Amino acid sequence: MNEVPYVHGYSAREADRLADQAHTLGELLHHDTVFPPGSLVLECGCGTGAQTVLLAARNPGARIVAVDVSAASLEQARARISAAGHRNVEFQTANLFDLPFGEGHFDHVFLCFLLEHVAEPAAALRAVQRVLRRGQTITVIEGDHGSWYCHPRTLESSRAVQCLVEVQARFGGDALIGRRLYPLLTEAGFRDVRVSPRMVYVDDSRPDLVEGFSKNTFIAMVEGVRDRALSLGMIDQCTWEKGIADLYRATEPGGTFCYTFFKGTASK
Amino acid sequence: MNEVPYVHGYSAREADRLADQAHTLGELLHHDTVFPPGSLVLECGCGTGAQTVLLAARNPGARIVAVDVSAASLEQARARISAAGHRNVEFQTANLFDLPFGEGHFDHVFLCFLLEHVAEPAAALRAVQRVLRRGQTITVIEGDHGSWYCHPRTLESSRAVQCLVEVQARFGGDALIGRRLYPLLTEAGFRDVRVSPRMVYVDDSRPDLVEGFSKNTFIAMVEGVRDRALSLGMIDQCTWEKGIADLYRATEPGGTFCYTFFKGTASK
Repeated sequence: MNEVPYVHGYSAREADRLADQAHTLGELLHHDTVFPPGSLVLECGCGTGAQTVLLAARNPGARIVAVDVSAASLEQARARISAAGHRNVEFQTANLFDLPFGEGHFDHVFLCFLLEHVAEPAAALRAVQRVLRRGQTITVIEGDHGSWYCHPRTLESSRAVQCLVEVQARFGGDALIGRRLYPLLTEAGFRDVRVSPRMVYVDDSRPDLVEGFSKNTFIAMVEGVRDRALSLGMIDQCTWEKGIADLYRATEPGGTFCYTFFKGTASK
Repeated sequence: MNEVPYVHGYSAREADRLADQAHTLGELLHHDTVFPPGSLVLECGCGTGAQTVLLAARNPGARIVAVDVSAASLEQARARISAAGHRNVEFQTANLFDLPFGEGHFDHVFLCFLLEHVAEPAAALRAVQRVLRRGQTITVIEGDHGSWYCHPRTLESSRAVQCLVEVQARFGGDALIGRRLYPLLTEAGFRDVRVSPRMVYVDDSRPDLVEGFSKNTFIAMVEGVRDRALSLGMIDQCTWEKGIADLYRATEPGGTFCYTFFKGTASK
């Protein structure tokens, strides 16, 4: 029941990708992530703080405690929050399954792009439920790589994306978890579960999304599993290279790109 | 360059399916299908009038001319419009590629679930462009069966849905056309092309969509190609039956269902 190795790695390009993603998608994912002033909010699995900085900016009156299992990521998160001038965030190293907080300690719990990496997401939800005050809310945001499609489409581009799904599965995660948020939250015993899809649709008329989402978020994420996918024999190099080239082709004029995130809220 | 046989058939269940679909999805697809009073609007490929009745209700000040290649469908469309009490619609039998109207005759052109059935959608768009007045707008709505996914997911349910895509391709259509609307409208020479996705997300908390969309629209549509898929050898009966059962499984508690329509508008 420990967290699994982080599939996306910890490289500099990966940090850039997460920053691009956070910027481009901030409005889509977080426009309604608003906590009342005075709230004590736990962000679980904050990583390098890409979402934390958005939460902090949008909720200046809330106190945010951001935890992650990686001390190195927290170091970057601290620097990011400090550079942005926010003073309402504390960071702490902690394992999701052994949170160093008492029962009902927090007014809100926030998880973003965390459950996809966890072998037992239902257990993770129960673990964070413990530290949430009764009657208060949890917010969970996840992607779903099975929601991706593009034009023009080719078998090779689908195979390359499928490698990302399969590598994540080998690490014990589930890249198709977005569609499961509703049953997961329900099974964990939360009430008033509401899940809303947040779809990203990209065509020529949206050059910011071509760069910020299609290339620097999604394709960068696929490219990030190249070595593992090849060394695990999931795909041959020729198919991989055509697949990646085809993904870039769908970011050129006349191409389109689709992906959907899911945001769930529920009460304890 | 003729229209191809209608993949969904003309059965009574099919007529019910289209009516359910129109009712459930009306708001999602048409809340912004609003034409100025006095407009002369062409609906191309109105079929049995499932969309026409929504257009007429939402635009009482517009005059709608609804055409279809099938006289039998127009008969049903007339009855539906008459039963709903709308008096702002005229029906006319016509072939999309040989419209009996002069250049620039209409203030707006509306196409819904038509291009997916047409072998040459770009040529269809140019054909309707001719009868649209310069500076005025076209509205095109299409689904994209490649946007479908569900939970729990199985290979067999994906195979059954894939049969629908393949049968439609055999008929000369493209069930994955939603993602192509932007390039198609652009290539046909329209200006100010804007495409927006309209995603349907279904879980237990939305029983109207479980019935009205997942079962009576989407699964009904897949079931509609059963005989053709089996007789064409696309799938064996055992896989088909498990696939359909699995689709229904995803409409039960704990299941989720996703699908995306695309709506494009553009100017001549």
